[in-house]
Amino acid sequence: MISIQEALSLIAIHAKSFGTEVLSIEDALGRVIAQDVVADRDYPPFNRSAMDGYAVQSADMNPAQQNQFQVIEHVLAGNVPEKVVTSGTCIKIMTGAPVPAGADAVIRIEEARGQGQMVSLNPAFVKPGKNIAWQGEDARKGDILIKQNKWLDAPAMTTLAVTGHHRIQVEKLPKVAIVSTGNEIIPVDAPVGAHQIRDSNSFAIKSALKRFQVQSPVTAIVPDDKAVLKETIHHFLDKDIIIVSGGVSKGDADYVPEVLSSLGIQQVFHQVKVKPGAPLWFGISPNGGVVFGLPGNPLSVQIACRIFLEPYLSACFRIESRPPVTFPFISQRTKKSKFDEFFPCRIVAHSPFSGLLPLVHNGSGDITSTLQSDGIALHPAPVPQLTDNTPVDFYFW
Amino acid sequence: MISIQEALSLIAIHAKSFGTEVLSIEDALGRVIAQDVVADRDYPPFNRSAMDGYAVQSADMNPAQQNQFQVIEHVLAGNVPEKVVTSGTCIKIMTGAPVPAGADAVIRIEEARGQGQMVSLNPAFVKPGKNIAWQGEDARKGDILIKQNKWLDAPAMTTLAVTGHHRIQVEKLPKVAIVSTGNEIIPVDAPVGAHQIRDSNSFAIKSALKRFQVQSPVTAIVPDDKAVLKETIHHFLDKDIIIVSGGVSKGDADYVPEVLSSLGIQQVFHQVKVKPGAPLWFGISPNGGVVFGLPGNPLSVQIACRIFLEPYLSACFRIESRPPVTFPFISQRTKKSKFDEFFPCRIVAHSPFSGLLPLVHNGSGDITSTLQSDGIALHPAPVPQLTDNTPVDFYFW
Repeated sequence: MISIQEALSLIAIHAKSFGTEVLSIEDALGRVIAQDVVADRDYPPFNRSAMDGYAVQSADMNPAQQNQFQVIEHVLAGNVPEKVVTSGTCIKIMTGAPVPAGADAVIRIEEARGQGQMVSLNPAFVKPGKNIAWQGEDARKGDILIKQNKWLDAPAMTTLAVTGHHRIQVEKLPKVAIVSTGNEIIPVDAPVGAHQIRDSNSFAIKSALKRFQVQSPVTAIVPDDKAVLKETIHHFLDKDIIIVSGGVSKGDADYVPEVLSSLGIQQVFHQVKVKPGAPLWFGISPNGGVVFGLPGNPLSVQIACRIFLEPYLSACFRIESRPPVTFPFISQRTKKSKFDEFFPCRIVAHSPFSGLLPLVHNGSGDITSTLQSDGIALHPAPVPQLTDNTPVDFYFW
Repeated sequence: MISIQEALSLIAIHAKSFGTEVLSIEDALGRVIAQDVVADRDYPPFNRSAMDGYAVQSADMNPAQQNQFQVIEHVLAGNVPEKVVTSGTCIKIMTGAPVPAGADAVIRIEEARGQGQMVSLNPAFVKPGKNIAWQGEDARKGDILIKQNKWLDAPAMTTLAVTGHHRIQVEKLPKVAIVSTGNEIIPVDAPVGAHQIRDSNSFAIKSALKRFQVQSPVTAIVPDDKAVLKETIHHFLDKDIIIVSGGVSKGDADYVPEVLSSLGIQQVFHQVKVKPGAPLWFGISPNGGVVFGLPGNPLSVQIACRIFLEPYLSACFRIESRPPVTFPFISQRTKKSKFDEFFPCRIVAHSPFSGLLPLVHNGSGDITSTLQSDGIALHPAPVPQLTDNTPVDFYFW
C-alpha cells in the first residue's frame, strides 16, 4: 500500500493533455486556457478619470481660498477632450473619460459649487494624480496577464473580454466512461428489489467532472460478471478516462483488477493508505488512457473524486489542483485506523475564525452524512486525536 | 444611502420564485430542488456487511482460543442468504451483501485463516454489530432526507439517485437580460479605438449567473443615449431580471435611473454604503421583474454580483446564500473611506490557519487585481485598520 502523496505523484506522472481547441469566449467559462493572454495595449489604455468631476492642474488648488475655475469643455466617457487645461481653467469630465492634456487631478463633482461657465472647487489639498487612473498603471502593453494554463473563472473572463480575446485556445476535454459495477446495482429509474441498491456513484462522478465542464460521459451498469465487465470496458478503451466504481477490493466478486489486467491495462497502483477508499486502483491502458477503479461506497466515491480524480484532471490541464484550506477544528475526533482519514465537515461561524464541524456518519456506506457538508477534512495518519482548535486541512467539494 | 444589510433586506423582500418544472436527474446538477426528498425505504435498506468477511454470532467469538467455524454458505452483494448462522457456523459474505439471519457481526477476511469448509477466525474481541451497517441506521423510511429548497451538489445528487428520484421538481430559472451601457463600450470582437473599452461586464455577470445554471441570457451594448437605452430596456421588460452596468451614478451621462423611472420601473434603493460599487441601483418593474443597476467598473461589477445579485437569486430559489468564511488577515490594511470596503484576496497557507492575503490594486477600474484572487474580503466601515490576525469575513467567488 502506498501513501496518498505517493498515489498523487503516480497519478500526476500519467497526466497528459487531451489536445487543444479554439473556442468563442462565449463558450470558454470554466474551461482551461491553453495560451498566454497578452495585454494588447496599456491598461488603462489612457489616463482615465476615476470619478465624475473637474479636471484641473493640482498646483492650481489652494487650500486657503475659494478656487474659481472657468469650465472650458465637457468630456463624457467615450469622447476625446479637445482643449488643454491651463491655470484657472478646468474641464468637466465623467468617470471613464480620458483626462485632458494639462490636467493632473480630478476634483469630485460633490466638491464643486456652481454650474455652467464658472465653478468653485474646494478641497483642502489635492495631490497630483488624484482620481486619475494613469495609462498603464494596471498593466503595460505586452505584459502577460494570464499565463497558460489557467482555469477561466469570472476574473479571467473579465480579462479576456477587456483585452479583446474573443477566440481563445483552450484545453480539450477528455472523453470519459463511467462504469458502475455490482450484482446489486440497478439504474435509478428501475424497480428496486429488497437487496438491491440504485446506482448513485455515476452521478457523484459526473458532478466532479462537471467542475471541468466535462459533460455527458458514457455510462454503464455492469454485474459482477467477468465476461460482461470485460466486454464493457473493452468497448470503452477509446476513452481518455474510464472510471469504474465497485469490484476493486479483495472480495470474491471483485473482478475489476483481474479484468482490467486481462485487457492489457497496466496497474500503476492498487490500495492507498486512506480511509474511506483504501482499495483505490489506478492504471494505464495500451491506448494511453487511464483507468480509475474506485471503491463502491458512495462516500468513498465522493472522496476519491475530490482527492484523486480532480488532481488528475488538474494535472492533465496543467493547472494547480485546488489546495486544502486549513481551518481550526471545533470538535473532538479520535483516529479509527492507522491510515489518513477523510470525513465530511461543515464550515461554521466560530470565534475568532470559522471552524470545521464534523458531521456524524456511521460509515462509508452512508448517504446522508455529506448532505450538510461543505467538503471533507483530513485526519492525518500520525495524529491520534483532533481537538478543539487543531489546525485541520479541509477540501471543499 | 443605505447599508449593505439594508440593501440585502430590500433585495430579499422582492425575491420571488420563477415557478417550478420537472427535470430528469441527468439535468438536475446545480439546480435547486423544489420538493422534499423522502426516504422510500430504510437506509441501509437491509443489514449490510461493511466488509468482505465471515458473518458470525459475536457471542461465539472467544479471545482465549482459536475459533473454528464451519462455512455454511457464500453470499455476494446482490444475493440473498438462504441459511441461518448458528453457533459454530459462519457465512462468507462480501461487502454490500445482506447479513444472514442469526449473525450479528462480520469478521474481516484479513482476520481469517483457512479456506473452504472450515475457517479459523481470530479477533481478540468482537462487539455485536461489528462491520455491520444496520438497516435504517442512516435513515428511516419516510424521513425527509433533503428539504426543499436545496442546491443540488454532488452529495445531494447521490441522495437523489440512491432513493430513486429520477424525475424531480426544481425551481425554474429566471429569464435574464444584461445591458452594458456607455459611449465608450464596444463588443469584445470589434476594433477598439484609443478611448474605447471592450465590454467585459456582461461576461462577469454571465459567470455569476452560471453558478445557478442560468445560461445564455440576452445581452445588449447601449450608448449613453436616453432614447436607445429606453427602447432597449423596454424591449427586455418581459425578463425576470434585467442587469444594467454603467450609467447609474451621478454623472452627466448617467441616464439609467431616469430611463428606468420613465419605464415605470420603481426605484427600491439607489446608492449603498459600499466601496467599490456605491452607485448600486435596484428597482422593480411593473410586470414583477427586477432591475439591478450596477456601476460600470469591472471590479465593482464582480463585487456586486457576489454581494447583491447572488443573494437575490438565492432568495428567489429560497436557499441560503453562501455565507462569508472568517479567516485571519495576514497583512495590514488601512480604511480608505467611511464605507464598508471589499477588496480581492487570495487564501494562502499560513500557520496555524490559512490566511487572507490582499492583492494589490489601484482602483475599481483594475482588471488584473482579481486574477489571482479566490474572492473578496470585507473591511467593515467602523474598523480603521486590519492587521495581522484580524478576523476578516471572506466571500469566495
